[in-house]
Amino acid sequence: MAHDEQAIRQVHSTWIDAVNAVDLARLLALMTDDVVFLNPGQAPVDRAGFSSSFSVGHQQARIRCSSELEEVVVVGDVAYTRSRDALSVTSRAGGEGTRFAGYRMTVYRKQADGRWLLARDAHTLSPA
Amino acid sequence: MAHDEQAIRQVHSTWIDAVNAVDLARLLALMTDDVVFLNPGQAPVDRAGFSSSFSVGHQQARIRCSSELEEVVVVGDVAYTRSRDALSVTSRAGGEGTRFAGYRMTVYRKQADGRWLLARDAHTLSPA
Repeated sequence: MAHDEQAIRQVHSTWIDAVNAVDLARLLALMTDDVVFLNPGQAPVDRAGFSSSFSVGHQQARIRCSSELEEVVVVGDVAYTRSRDALSVTSRAGGEGTRFAGYRMTVYRKQADGRWLLARDAHTLSPA
Repeated sequence: MAHDEQAIRQVHSTWIDAVNAVDLARLLALMTDDVVFLNPGQAPVDRAGFSSSFSVGHQQARIRCSSELEEVVVVGDVAYTRSRDALSVTSRAGGEGTRFAGYRMTVYRKQADGRWLLARDAHTLSPA
């Protein structure tokens, strides 16, 4: 269980690094095929929707996120986590940046090969 | 597994009915002791925080919610669900109501006695 928790903390850390590095391929390798993201004010987003909105978002703005894990609960081949997140978004066209803050709840699934992948994610980030 | 899914659907349905009936005792019986709720623009809310904000909220306003389950995934003694929710809030002091719409992700835990209880919940409801 300690090993699983450590693996999930590593996925979380890699995820945040990949967002900041605009590394979509690395993010796609960390999520399940049936992943679903819930974002405020939007319909649920799947893998394809994540890819397109991530690409468009990073073309239009410099996005910098940070995330601190507040809990990791592992139960067999499922885990759920809660993190406190912050995001700054600055348009590449110039202008002042916008800061968002909030929390994130994520469900991870352990795969047959032992990897933990992000399966469901909901966040409550709002302008700070 | 079909039995567990049916039990979770029943908890979800009972939860919504209890919110609309302003039945806090029934809601408290459906959540774990360590429950955490994530709401947009707020710090995480525990069992005591839920109780006080539920009571204050229903004293100040007529609250009517509806929720449609879009998925129920059971993995051993953990389950996660996604629902599409709507909420109308009308001040008891009068005035027009406000409508909210969004999605909810919930984690349920199966107890030693077989009951499924709500353990974690995050929603993305925003003014519609």
